[in-house]
Amino acid sequence: MKGQRPLAAEQIGEGNIPHLKNLQSDYDHLAEQLDRRGVDAAAVLKKVSGFTVAIPSWGTGRGGTRFAKFPIAGEPTNIHEKLQDCAVIQQLCAITPRVSPHFPWDKVSDYVALREEADDLGLGFDAVNSNTFQDQPGQAHTYANGSLSSTDAGARALAVEHNIECIEIGRQIGSRDLTVWVGDGTNFPGQQDLGKQLDRYLDSAAQIYSALPDGWRMLLEHKMFEPAFYSTVISDWGSSILAAQELGPKAKCLVDLGHHAPNVNIEQIVARLHRFGKLGGFHFNDSKYGDDDLDSGSINPHQLFLVFNELIEAELEPRNGFDPAYMIDQSHNVTDPIESILSSAEAIAQCYTKALLVDRGALHEAQRTNDTMMAFQVLRRAYSVDVGPIIAMARVNAGGAYDPIGAYRQSEWRLRKAQERRSVGLGAGIV
Amino acid sequence: MKGQRPLAAEQIGEGNIPHLKNLQSDYDHLAEQLDRRGVDAAAVLKKVSGFTVAIPSWGTGRGGTRFAKFPIAGEPTNIHEKLQDCAVIQQLCAITPRVSPHFPWDKVSDYVALREEADDLGLGFDAVNSNTFQDQPGQAHTYANGSLSSTDAGARALAVEHNIECIEIGRQIGSRDLTVWVGDGTNFPGQQDLGKQLDRYLDSAAQIYSALPDGWRMLLEHKMFEPAFYSTVISDWGSSILAAQELGPKAKCLVDLGHHAPNVNIEQIVARLHRFGKLGGFHFNDSKYGDDDLDSGSINPHQLFLVFNELIEAELEPRNGFDPAYMIDQSHNVTDPIESILSSAEAIAQCYTKALLVDRGALHEAQRTNDTMMAFQVLRRAYSVDVGPIIAMARVNAGGAYDPIGAYRQSEWRLRKAQERRSVGLGAGIV
Amino acid sequence: MKGQRPLAAEQIGEGNIPHLKNLQSDYDHLAEQLDRRGVDAAAVLKKVSGFTVAIPSWGTGRGGTRFAKFPIAGEPTNIHEKLQDCAVIQQLCAITPRVSPHFPWDKVSDYVALREEADDLGLGFDAVNSNTFQDQPGQAHTYANGSLSSTDAGARALAVEHNIECIEIGRQIGSRDLTVWVGDGTNFPGQQDLGKQLDRYLDSAAQIYSALPDGWRMLLEHKMFEPAFYSTVISDWGSSILAAQELGPKAKCLVDLGHHAPNVNIEQIVARLHRFGKLGGFHFNDSKYGDDDLDSGSINPHQLFLVFNELIEAELEPRNGFDPAYMIDQSHNVTDPIESILSSAEAIAQCYTKALLVDRGALHEAQRTNDTMMAFQVLRRAYSVDVGPIIAMARVNAGGAYDPIGAYRQSEWRLRKAQERRSVGLGAGIV
Amino acid sequence: MKGQRPLAAEQIGEGNIPHLKNLQSDYDHLAEQLDRRGVDAAAVLKKVSGFTVAIPSWGTGRGGTRFAKFPIAGEPTNIHEKLQDCAVIQQLCAITPRVSPHFPWDKVSDYVALREEADDLGLGFDAVNSNTFQDQPGQAHTYANGSLSSTDAGARALAVEHNIECIEIGRQIGSRDLTVWVGDGTNFPGQQDLGKQLDRYLDSAAQIYSALPDGWRMLLEHKMFEPAFYSTVISDWGSSILAAQELGPKAKCLVDLGHHAPNVNIEQIVARLHRFGKLGGFHFNDSKYGDDDLDSGSINPHQLFLVFNELIEAELEPRNGFDPAYMIDQSHNVTDPIESILSSAEAIAQCYTKALLVDRGALHEAQRTNDTMMAFQVLRRAYSVDVGPIIAMARVNAGGAYDPIGAYRQSEWRLRKAQERRSVGLGAGIV
Repeated sequence: MKGQRPLAAEQIGEGNIPHLKNLQSDYDHLAEQLDRRGVDAAAVLKKVSGFTVAIPSWGTGRGGTRFAKFPIAGEPTNIHEKLQDCAVIQQLCAITPRVSPHFPWDKVSDYVALREEADDLGLGFDAVNSNTFQDQPGQAHTYANGSLSSTDAGARALAVEHNIECIEIGRQIGSRDLTVWVGDGTNFPGQQDLGKQLDRYLDSAAQIYSALPDGWRMLLEHKMFEPAFYSTVISDWGSSILAAQELGPKAKCLVDLGHHAPNVNIEQIVARLHRFGKLGGFHFNDSKYGDDDLDSGSINPHQLFLVFNELIEAELEPRNGFDPAYMIDQSHNVTDPIESILSSAEAIAQCYTKALLVDRGALHEAQRTNDTMMAFQVLRRAYSVDVGPIIAMARVNAGGAYDPIGAYRQSEWRLRKAQERRSVGLGAGIV
Repeated sequence: MKGQRPLAAEQIGEGNIPHLKNLQSDYDHLAEQLDRRGVDAAAVLKKVSGFTVAIPSWGTGRGGTRFAKFPIAGEPTNIHEKLQDCAVIQQLCAITPRVSPHFPWDKVSDYVALREEADDLGLGFDAVNSNTFQDQPGQAHTYANGSLSSTDAGARALAVEHNIECIEIGRQIGSRDLTVWVGDGTNFPGQQDLGKQLDRYLDSAAQIYSALPDGWRMLLEHKMFEPAFYSTVISDWGSSILAAQELGPKAKCLVDLGHHAPNVNIEQIVARLHRFGKLGGFHFNDSKYGDDDLDSGSINPHQLFLVFNELIEAELEPRNGFDPAYMIDQSHNVTDPIESILSSAEAIAQCYTKALLVDRGALHEAQRTNDTMMAFQVLRRAYSVDVGPIIAMARVNAGGAYDPIGAYRQSEWRLRKAQERRSVGLGAGIV
Repeated sequence: MKGQRPLAAEQIGEGNIPHLKNLQSDYDHLAEQLDRRGVDAAAVLKKVSGFTVAIPSWGTGRGGTRFAKFPIAGEPTNIHEKLQDCAVIQQLCAITPRVSPHFPWDKVSDYVALREEADDLGLGFDAVNSNTFQDQPGQAHTYANGSLSSTDAGARALAVEHNIECIEIGRQIGSRDLTVWVGDGTNFPGQQDLGKQLDRYLDSAAQIYSALPDGWRMLLEHKMFEPAFYSTVISDWGSSILAAQELGPKAKCLVDLGHHAPNVNIEQIVARLHRFGKLGGFHFNDSKYGDDDLDSGSINPHQLFLVFNELIEAELEPRNGFDPAYMIDQSHNVTDPIESILSSAEAIAQCYTKALLVDRGALHEAQRTNDTMMAFQVLRRAYSVDVGPIIAMARVNAGGAYDPIGAYRQSEWRLRKAQERRSVGLGAGIV
Repeated sequence: MKGQRPLAAEQIGEGNIPHLKNLQSDYDHLAEQLDRRGVDAAAVLKKVSGFTVAIPSWGTGRGGTRFAKFPIAGEPTNIHEKLQDCAVIQQLCAITPRVSPHFPWDKVSDYVALREEADDLGLGFDAVNSNTFQDQPGQAHTYANGSLSSTDAGARALAVEHNIECIEIGRQIGSRDLTVWVGDGTNFPGQQDLGKQLDRYLDSAAQIYSALPDGWRMLLEHKMFEPAFYSTVISDWGSSILAAQELGPKAKCLVDLGHHAPNVNIEQIVARLHRFGKLGGFHFNDSKYGDDDLDSGSINPHQLFLVFNELIEAELEPRNGFDPAYMIDQSHNVTDPIESILSSAEAIAQCYTKALLVDRGALHEAQRTNDTMMAFQVLRRAYSVDVGPIIAMARVNAGGAYDPIGAYRQSEWRLRKAQERRSVGLGAGIV
């Protein structure tokens, strides 16, 4: 550990002490239960200990809606403060060692220094996110009519240039993925030619693609609606994969769990993207209605488990490769963002762990023989397990807190920051 | 006409002249067609001439999403400029003589003067809208945890007080309805006790209700989601009507067309609210996904026609009374708001007119005899009619423009205002 | 135990023996874990031991779709065989002691004898279900245009009469609830007057209501669509509760989990129905798209948990009473129905048990103080528990099988019935 | 006209006479209106006169749901009677000259004779539909666990063989398209490996593909759910187009308007399929909830117009070709199927005609300059036109009836058939 961490490691360790005996007892009993089913808990623990998910830099601040934003005292207002909060999260949960930055929101003058700053905090950088859905003050061409797909060649060029700049920044901070999500679309039937709008998007995207260094990927993120409310250019996984096919092998598809039509079977989309060699990564969150950006696993944790079930299958049957990027992407409108990310990272790890517990042999045999009930029972048996002891053991072993939220509250981090950081204004509300 | 109108009436009249002959010819031919079906075009024209819908003051400015707002030069930034724009709309389309204000957004120091100002512009005021979904600078109690249903008695009292103040303002400006929509709800399972949250809402609402003057109504507006994304206190028409029942006879339900679950039969909800004596009014708009606040009739005009079909039935069979308030409530993110309102008011008038053309006798007979195909054909026959000539005739007769958007463009109103009005900043985007 | 049970009780007991030691160990460890949280496992076990859910008689046969039905050898073809299968289920899982019959499907000549037959099998009868969505051969008036809401007075009278007959049958077999679900609705806009159709429904329903004996309830079951695809008479909980209010205190609302619009918050509907004194019961199942009638807890078990969370809250805060009827209502298209019901009853019991584990004091305190994260964590903590040992302990204590599906397979019940029972024809498919 | 038509042509002609004068007057006035907008009515009339849509043979009988089917007297029970009804439809509306058959439902011993029989009735055959979603009596391998994607090699072989047989039949009756829709999918998470299930589907489909004669196409029809309720093999356009890509150039995608997730932008899917060279055809119908199979244009005619708007754009910008097959696919549960098809064919023709009226030059210019309001107004202007006179003129010119449903009723066709044809039993209802 090179640098100075925001929380005192000893305090975390001391806070764990009263829980260690019970943790060991719970873990041992679970290991015994799993052993009866032929599952080696130690092997699972090892895999879980290697699991990580990236934090979005913007997720460390309070989010809001077009109606309002209710800030909290002590929330971060620049990338340096955001990194500090991310370091707190990583210290406590030990599965979030990377931060996914967003530009221009996280712009600084010296990216080499930024990388060192992160490194000192025990953090690295994950996929870089470009932003062509907002105009910046003094911007030469507006994105009001779209960015990569705009009819305005100037706006397209600006958007392409910005993405290429994001790649350049990414090189300096150690990223290897560029995530491209655009707000382009229409609010009225007829507003744009739906075919030519995609042509323009693909033409612009190809220019970005050609600037990708070796070993980089371009992750295309689809979304059904919002901010455009009649159509969006990359509206669904079908549009996304066809675009990725046209762009080339470095282009992959990124699945945000909240960007789909109601009722859609997202785990099957994951399986389809893998089947056709284009599964690139995830933006984890949960939702009940639209792109609600709620905390991962708070609404439908079973769906999250089923997604991981497909991912484990994909890992076992890699076809043309399996290397998805895992990121959280949520909007923390009513909670302390640090607590929400801690809770979400745990929920994601739980679903991953449960998916590891699935008796693959029994599942495949039940599938082969059309023993539908038994196939489902195999999944349910894994899903029903309380995997808390495994995850807590992995966390404590890695220096994290037995009870991350409890330890965070005890640290009074936010209270201290409320005294140090400048306050954030009320969100105006755009209705 | 007492005051000075923003556009020159003569110019509108002159602009109509080249179209009048064709209008008469189109109207005459339509009247002949309708006559063959036993419909008296003159009677329809008379009813259409009396139809009006209110404009939301906030709808005269550009709207946006949590991601961005793209302002246009010359958009209004205070109630006085908004009233001017509303007057332009009313001059051109002649069916929007009332403005629905929103507080505190439209706050002024002298409401008697405001009423006169509106009156001079040929405008009156419709339902007053309260706002307890945003905190105002320096507000004593935050609405971050809800307003009328907050666990914080101070926040509840503040929200009640604000609504009562809205009623008081409404009395001064000549309103008779208070529309109450709250952002209260939850983003997490367990965040609040769903029963007690409603109890608190009802308790607060009863305090507002008791402050209603005679002849006033309290319009409860339900919404499924946004800004709350797990539950909302008044989430659907069921919650709304039960609340209205508990409050008393002055409480009615307001239907916003974009506030429902996917696939829901909104026209039947209208029929249900009327059946149980609680239909209070409408917020017209259109949507494809959620509360998209798109222009009325731009996505599913047939649904809007079916809503008006229920309204005409309700008027013929008033049961316990029929007096709904009609308002537009849209977010104009990509168009000039004046053009969107002109287009939307026309779309609403079209659907109303088509519903008037339904052969009620034939419909009821087909319903009675279960001649399903014929019942549907009666509706289709009315829906298929191009009612443009009737609406244009009513408009021209009332001093409006034959081609409202064309006349508006020719007036160069926005261009002139762009030089006079202060510019609006970029919407920050709250993600 | 009065009568002859289908399976040998000794065999079930013997099958349990190898598992008892592990069960005790798992239970003890769970009890210790819960004790640390201040939860008394023994008290939970006691409540779980008293929990029951009724089986639908029709659910013991293979279901299908309009496209096809794929029967299995040995499925029951009359109420006597269905009761036998239900007895098998109850022997194995011990929480399904009642059967909900459906008429005319389960018609017999002697209902007193039927009740004795059930009693001998260890079964009682739950809510009686009427059927006015199908025509029976030789029926005097068709339900093609609706039943309780038909424009045909003869059809309405027939439907009323049938429901009253169902009540009479129910009296003889020991029921106390009548569940009324109708297929009435429309497939075309205009097909019926939506207000008058409800008037007729209410008029017919009032006739049935007036025939209810003391202590009986009439459970109104709403459904958004299918078999009618434009509108349904009792389409949502709003229509249902307003109808129940008009009918009187014996009328209550029944919630089928699959009968709602996409995305709807069903647990809040449960809370609303309780808040207004009209929560009557449940048809448990799960669904991903529409009324899929999938196995309970197979798609979204977290939602089922949240429903039970509301039920536990309602029990603690009974307001005007709390006595909901719990029934399974599923369509077993691809599994052995006995296995699906065993699996579903267990899933329901799991969610009930998890809801019992919620730390109500901590939850209410977090709600009171708007500690949203902690409120949610209280729910998550309960949901994460593997309650299998408690349910298995309750089941084994009551004479059921440690592993119900395993024991069922070992019994070769279906194989034996396949040799005894007459075979069912292929479902024709109605497209 | 070679053969004997079911209705007397003279009677149709005589029935038209009283309407001809008004029709001419309406047409002339419309032509004048269109002329003012620069549209040549005669050119539109010519295009409309060439427009056709195929009838599904199964759509001539009453449909139903899993709950019930309510037959009508005189409905057809074999392909010969179905062809007669189709001939009646074609005589009356003159835009449905082809029938899309379904096997084994339409099996006969002599297909050469069947083709002649159709030809004598003025009919040809359109796409052949295979059926592997039902088991036929005595079938060697069940489709209970899927057909083309079954784990059972025997079932897969049978399904492949059946499709190849359908091609062979198609050759004999003059078809050139095979439509493949399968009910394959799952009802439980885990029931099948989602990747391998698609592999098997693709393997089977490739065998069928390789049997396609030159000039034939294989139309893949996707569907989100039903009869499978957790996942379907070809669930959406993404799965469909990827499958079509793998199969080869003869494989195209068929869009059924009712087979999508809620809220999905179907017209954009049409544009996407065209953009990527895989738009194969349509199954027209309408829906409000799921695959409701309601009459075309009865719920959302504006959406149907927007679909045709994309089709006209596609025709103008053919990229890699444009030759979609148009078929109706509806379930007529509550109407006389002949009337529903007449009404639906007219609704489809209306939307096609309105799309022809769109001022493409003005639209494209508005799109180019981001004049969003004007782009939308161009569409609205076309949509608002009552195109009835053009369609009626085309129909009457082609020997059809001015008022098809009226003429049909006057013919008493169904009444006569009710006396001749054998009656259909009540649908059993599979719940």
